[in-house]
Amino acid sequence: METPTNVTIKGILGILMASLDEENKKRVISLGMGDPTAYSCFTTTDVVQDSVAQTLESQKFNGYAPTIGLPQTRKAISEYLSNDLPYTLSPDDVYITAGCTQAIEVTISILAKPNANILVPKPGFPIYELCAAFRNVEIRHYDLLPKKGWEVDLNAIDELADENTVAIVIINPGNPCGNVYSYQHLKKIAEAAKRHKILVVADEVYGHLAFGENPFVPMGVFGSMVPVITLGSLSKRWLVPGWRLGWFITTDPNGIFKNAKTVERLKKYFDICGGPATFIQAAVPRILSDTKEVFFARTIRLLKQSSDLCFEKLKGIPCLTCPQKPQGAMSVMVKLNVSLLKDIRDDIDFCFKLAKEESVILLPGLTVGLKNWVRITFAAEPSSLEEALDRVKSFYQRHSHQQKVQNDLIL
Amino acid sequence: METPTNVTIKGILGILMASLDEENKKRVISLGMGDPTAYSCFTTTDVVQDSVAQTLESQKFNGYAPTIGLPQTRKAISEYLSNDLPYTLSPDDVYITAGCTQAIEVTISILAKPNANILVPKPGFPIYELCAAFRNVEIRHYDLLPKKGWEVDLNAIDELADENTVAIVIINPGNPCGNVYSYQHLKKIAEAAKRHKILVVADEVYGHLAFGENPFVPMGVFGSMVPVITLGSLSKRWLVPGWRLGWFITTDPNGIFKNAKTVERLKKYFDICGGPATFIQAAVPRILSDTKEVFFARTIRLLKQSSDLCFEKLKGIPCLTCPQKPQGAMSVMVKLNVSLLKDIRDDIDFCFKLAKEESVILLPGLTVGLKNWVRITFAAEPSSLEEALDRVKSFYQRHSHQQKVQNDLIL
Ligand SMILES: Cc1ncc(COP(=O)(O)O)c(C=O)c1O
Ligand SMILES: Cc1ncc(COP(=O)(O)O)c(C=O)c1O
Repeated sequence: METPTNVTIKGILGILMASLDEENKKRVISLGMGDPTAYSCFTTTDVVQDSVAQTLESQKFNGYAPTIGLPQTRKAISEYLSNDLPYTLSPDDVYITAGCTQAIEVTISILAKPNANILVPKPGFPIYELCAAFRNVEIRHYDLLPKKGWEVDLNAIDELADENTVAIVIINPGNPCGNVYSYQHLKKIAEAAKRHKILVVADEVYGHLAFGENPFVPMGVFGSMVPVITLGSLSKRWLVPGWRLGWFITTDPNGIFKNAKTVERLKKYFDICGGPATFIQAAVPRILSDTKEVFFARTIRLLKQSSDLCFEKLKGIPCLTCPQKPQGAMSVMVKLNVSLLKDIRDDIDFCFKLAKEESVILLPGLTVGLKNWVRITFAAEPSSLEEALDRVKSFYQRHSHQQKVQNDLIL
Repeated sequence: METPTNVTIKGILGILMASLDEENKKRVISLGMGDPTAYSCFTTTDVVQDSVAQTLESQKFNGYAPTIGLPQTRKAISEYLSNDLPYTLSPDDVYITAGCTQAIEVTISILAKPNANILVPKPGFPIYELCAAFRNVEIRHYDLLPKKGWEVDLNAIDELADENTVAIVIINPGNPCGNVYSYQHLKKIAEAAKRHKILVVADEVYGHLAFGENPFVPMGVFGSMVPVITLGSLSKRWLVPGWRLGWFITTDPNGIFKNAKTVERLKKYFDICGGPATFIQAAVPRILSDTKEVFFARTIRLLKQSSDLCFEKLKGIPCLTCPQKPQGAMSVMVKLNVSLLKDIRDDIDFCFKLAKEESVILLPGLTVGLKNWVRITFAAEPSSLEEALDRVKSFYQRHSHQQKVQNDLIL
């Protein structure tokens, strides 16, 4: 097996961190990774914490769980997700994974077969590409359209899909773009998938983190029209990405995907997975039933505030344009106009020089598939976000062609 | 991808459990699975429990860890394993996994390439076969020799290995056989691997659980002679299989396997794995440094007692013969002599009828590669073990050809 050549977000962030200037006295502010727990305003709530402390302390869950997950955990997740669906999921539709990451890995491995290809968004989440490289699945990129609120380019789907296409991946609410799709747009995606007889893989790791115009609609709503695999986790909504508790769901009431043979293969696949800790699984029923609405509302409020702040601050940085105010999730894509800068080659160069000079970490768009764009994670303490964007602004001013003129004006 | 046809231990145990007779008033005793935590005598110790409670409570580890593991965890494991080696491992040799299961999965996936084959013991641990089937790696079985304490058939290695062989897997202390290999035997395995220029994959998930003649010697002792990948976890020695904390170690001081390209690929592979919870990882340094010797000694004593009991009891059951008194790990293989039984076809038939009639679960040898053998897990409460084997004895008596004679004698 060859080494996939993909850059990963963690890989590039590691290099960026290593390239910080140690002489620089400014504190490092990272808006690079999607881990809000780095900021104290994004901590989980007591009941979530207590639920796991309790199952741990009971010492009843130190043994193995079934590899597809504890029955009570599968049941609780099926009920939680069914709340937003026009039909009821069965606990048998639920498979417990080590975070949404492992749910992605399972999806790609299960869909892999000779010559298979999968449609994946650009920009997107590079773990899909990396998994596909390790499993010999071909990736075909469809564009997200910045001028249309990062909607799926539906025409591209018809051009890209062929008889070897097995699935289309959508990420909603979206990383890296902060999009939240309308019911109507999701319906069109479902129709396109049905037309091409392919599955929809709905990465809803940011499920319910919507704070704009469109409410969050799970793709599973269209499960009767086209089989959907829904991926999710506790990571984002409950602010515990380190707990590694995710799910892979067959949102497929007509059993088109989940026939007996597929289910048998899936179950076997879980025997080799490792999976999450039993006591964390055992805490999920209480976490899902007892987390208060105020906690969710608080997170949404914080995310909205910080995304608004980010959007406003960006208006003062001419070399970065934001085509669409974020409506959900934790990050936004902004276009980098290098022609306004005198000594910046591209997004990579921009992010490296910014890290060195300003101790601010942003993610080069190339990492998520868009050259000369930059991803900014706004899930941060407002004061940090503000300071970081002020530093980006002075970076811009120093590197702008007009620096001289500006300096003259200031003097 | 086709569904692998392998039976898995968990799969067959599930069917066995489902075939229990509900009318039967006897309590179910399972000696089928290697999960000692089902028995209250095998509970972990307070410091282990407290270490995780503490890292959880601190709320400092709710965020992502690096996908290869927390630095302090990697360091602690490298030091722990170096204690028993003639050289020092670096933290960079350590990759943290979701149990030893995921360490196996990583190993097979990383070794996979077109036409590659791997040598695997028979009897063995079926997750190797299942992983290999999903990753299109050919498995070649070498025999373990019951008359030689389940040692590796070294001649077979020379016959099986060819230019496409990439590794030989050994499990020591052994599941399912309860073997513990001598230094000399391990050295011969290392020499054979060196001769064929292949890696040794040493599954040491039962590391240190040795209570017979041979002390436990880690295969890494021969790492200077031949590159070794050592797999392990907290599961068995610390009695917390549900915590899913394992490791994949490059025990390769000369850097034959771990060249720059392999390391890069390995690191990328971990980006798609999911991995174990950050707060459990964070507890590992304290777990490794503070677990008291008396706890380990107690487990060893319990295992020795129950394996002795099992060995003695088996002497009273003519249809089951134990070729080798177990020296380590948690299970033993016994040969089933169906010719002494009037209505038992094979090991599968034996285990199903036993489950139905006596509510005792044993594992059919076929599951681990040996038809007409049976695996007995002795890591159980002595009273349960005794009762279970008494029931196996009466099962034998009822199904024996000599039943009539015996009954006559009793009357
Ligand atoms: C789109 C997307 N999918 C999946 C994941 C992985 O989720 P988890 O942390 O639950 O493994 C992330 C994490 O940032 C993500 O952004
Ligand atoms: C030989 C062997 N390897 C690996 C494993 C898996 O270990 P873990 O529970 O740490 O995933 C087991 C579990 O029983 C085993 O017997």
